[in-house]
Amino acid sequence: MLQSIANTIPAGTSDVFGFSARTRDYVIESIKRVYERYGFEPLYTPILEHAEVFNGHHGEGEQLLFKLNDKLGNQLVLKYDSTVPLARVVSMYPDIPKPYKRYQLQSSFRDDEVDKGHFREFIQCDGDIVGAETLLSDAEIAMIAYDGLSEIGFTDFTIRLNHRKIIQGIAEKSGVFSKEGLLEIQRAIDYADKIIKDDLEGIRKDLKRRQVADDVIVTICDLVQRITDNPLETLDNIEDYLKDCPVAVEGINELKEILSYIPEAMSSKVRIDFTLARGADYYTGFILEAVINNIKLGAVLGGGRFDNLVEAFSSKKVPAVGMAFGLERILTAMHELNLTEKLNIQPKKVLITDNGLLQKEIISCAINLRKNFDVSILYGQEEHHHAVDYARHCGYRVLVDFKSKSTVELTSIGEDLCGYAFLVKDKLSWLGYTILEKAI
Amino acid sequence: MLQSIANTIPAGTSDVFGFSARTRDYVIESIKRVYERYGFEPLYTPILEHAEVFNGHHGEGEQLLFKLNDKLGNQLVLKYDSTVPLARVVSMYPDIPKPYKRYQLQSSFRDDEVDKGHFREFIQCDGDIVGAETLLSDAEIAMIAYDGLSEIGFTDFTIRLNHRKIIQGIAEKSGVFSKEGLLEIQRAIDYADKIIKDDLEGIRKDLKRRQVADDVIVTICDLVQRITDNPLETLDNIEDYLKDCPVAVEGINELKEILSYIPEAMSSKVRIDFTLARGADYYTGFILEAVINNIKLGAVLGGGRFDNLVEAFSSKKVPAVGMAFGLERILTAMHELNLTEKLNIQPKKVLITDNGLLQKEIISCAINLRKNFDVSILYGQEEHHHAVDYARHCGYRVLVDFKSKSTVELTSIGEDLCGYAFLVKDKLSWLGYTILEKAI
Repeated sequence: MLQSIANTIPAGTSDVFGFSARTRDYVIESIKRVYERYGFEPLYTPILEHAEVFNGHHGEGEQLLFKLNDKLGNQLVLKYDSTVPLARVVSMYPDIPKPYKRYQLQSSFRDDEVDKGHFREFIQCDGDIVGAETLLSDAEIAMIAYDGLSEIGFTDFTIRLNHRKIIQGIAEKSGVFSKEGLLEIQRAIDYADKIIKDDLEGIRKDLKRRQVADDVIVTICDLVQRITDNPLETLDNIEDYLKDCPVAVEGINELKEILSYIPEAMSSKVRIDFTLARGADYYTGFILEAVINNIKLGAVLGGGRFDNLVEAFSSKKVPAVGMAFGLERILTAMHELNLTEKLNIQPKKVLITDNGLLQKEIISCAINLRKNFDVSILYGQEEHHHAVDYARHCGYRVLVDFKSKSTVELTSIGEDLCGYAFLVKDKLSWLGYTILEKAI
Repeated sequence: MLQSIANTIPAGTSDVFGFSARTRDYVIESIKRVYERYGFEPLYTPILEHAEVFNGHHGEGEQLLFKLNDKLGNQLVLKYDSTVPLARVVSMYPDIPKPYKRYQLQSSFRDDEVDKGHFREFIQCDGDIVGAETLLSDAEIAMIAYDGLSEIGFTDFTIRLNHRKIIQGIAEKSGVFSKEGLLEIQRAIDYADKIIKDDLEGIRKDLKRRQVADDVIVTICDLVQRITDNPLETLDNIEDYLKDCPVAVEGINELKEILSYIPEAMSSKVRIDFTLARGADYYTGFILEAVINNIKLGAVLGGGRFDNLVEAFSSKKVPAVGMAFGLERILTAMHELNLTEKLNIQPKKVLITDNGLLQKEIISCAINLRKNFDVSILYGQEEHHHAVDYARHCGYRVLVDFKSKSTVELTSIGEDLCGYAFLVKDKLSWLGYTILEKAI
């Protein structure tokens, strides 16, 4: 007998079962459905990758890689995200027709600080379009963000947009022209964003704390003051302010074009936000995030355009744009909003009790019912109230109790008794089926 | 630019995309559906487990564990299977109502010899019933094996059954009474089974090579000679031979009871086989495997009863029975049988070409069509024959080309031109929908 550590799981990982597993499957299926609707196809890459694959794409994030050695003497890592493996795949299999639109709903691993609420093993639901330069594809990514959250059941959320070229504009307007300087500013904005207060003073203080240069802070605050609820208006507002900065103007025009493709219902949830930077180094164009309003949680999805990442794996420049839904945060948000209770997540299952006497009749009846329903047998349980408790706990809708070889009692869980029904050759009579279908 | 190892994946792992990913999803969905039909529910456990969890359950297999250390100083392993984590879960969360019927379709990891065709990262589709002693549950596991393979599309397969108590009987009849001696015989039979020839001489030679004692070989061969195509007949045939061995008689009677619950259609595919032992140490009762006939591949699924495994994690004895489908082998078998070609695996998708002029109309049309179809946009592709090639390669059924703001050409891929249709406010006319539905 082992007690102790064999009865625990590593911090930052989780066992998921019961209703939580149903909810998880529901979210995954919702997101898959949306990706399929946009013509995306599935990709699976290994959990185990050569350590070299993840070299140089995630800045400080690389310290969080789980490393291990295999028997062949290779240094391996557990996949840190699904974007870098996508770039590797596109480079390794150049015959995949472009645009390659793929979704990938798999675990990623980061040896992060668990006491700050980080998971170390978590699921990201990535969708990317590789090989398309047109901003139509950026617009489709933003639409997938909107459709995905809507499909899951969220109604009150905001999709935040910004553009790396606008951030570059902010840097240049403040006299920073080096690549390193820009990266530093990006990371500082990204970091500050996570703890940002809504008022200007809060933003100023947070950027200051992260040692962003005063000039840059002034520029960011000037832009933030020009943000309105209308994304096109916001872009118009800053156009004049940044007009001397060609790269920023490019970014503004790209965002405008992207917005022009987006349906009205969605635009109302879009907000241009100049405090958004995103963590990954590889973004080159539009970036997006979504937050569920009135919940302190951070982004439930994020993404953007990354035109140079594939080039790191092959000599070819291949443009790309994409995003990822964060499963764990979405589940937390659903929980906080009591969304799971409102949704119809539990499958409609039938439970047959085994009275210990009529096994052959019971299994034949189960086989017959399984042509139409999901049917479980509760083995060797004799007391009716135990069976009802079990059914209630496990989400069964109907209980079937054998009274004799030819009679069963049907109980609708949580409601009144449904009635008795006859069995003919281990098949429920027509009336029995009718009662059962009504109860389900 | 990196070439070299960053453009490879670790041996024994795989990237899965395109039609292969569709086939994989098809198999996983088929197996899930069968588990659901039997009232099973999903469980997810982490890839990362504490090393202690996998201590002492897999004999020589433990040498294949992938080990790593995290920043917190814990020794972790990548999950070797899903059965041991299930036992841990049942012990950690004693409130889960029993019988607990769960399925778990997740990756497992073994640092095995790749040159022998082993995968190091692979998916097993486990289903287990925890907390039921009745042999009804063993019968349901066997029925799931049958239904799972049938649902996938296999028709010519054999489900091999044996019983660990019969193997114990073989040992005892040959004078081996110690636990270690029994384990050795089990492992030897299991090993030999994998390379066994169909004739008696082959079996004898293989067992001999694995240093099984002559007495044991004689007993096994005596039993093998009594096997017929009829499982009940086989059991009757050996009953007299093993009648002095109470433990074997128990095993025989259990198999008979299990068979009594199994529908006739399935029995015809069942074969009792005394050369079947299964690798895991933890099995205590009936064991099963399935092979696809006329393919040299080994078992595509395996399982059995394991009444003592949960006890290793808590002081409580909790009976359990279950099985796992091996995804990779199932896919190999489907491929060898050309089964994938016969199945309707590809989703029915529509491809709209973007002629580079009418983006807004195209995206509006896509939004409208997505209410009924999965729709992808082929960005910036002007030449019709390129679009047809792309559609053909990626499995699209219909191509929609914008001719003007109000006219599209519909092409059925692989068939004749379907026709032209009008658009009214970016919506396909009634006639257009009719053509499209017909083409799909």
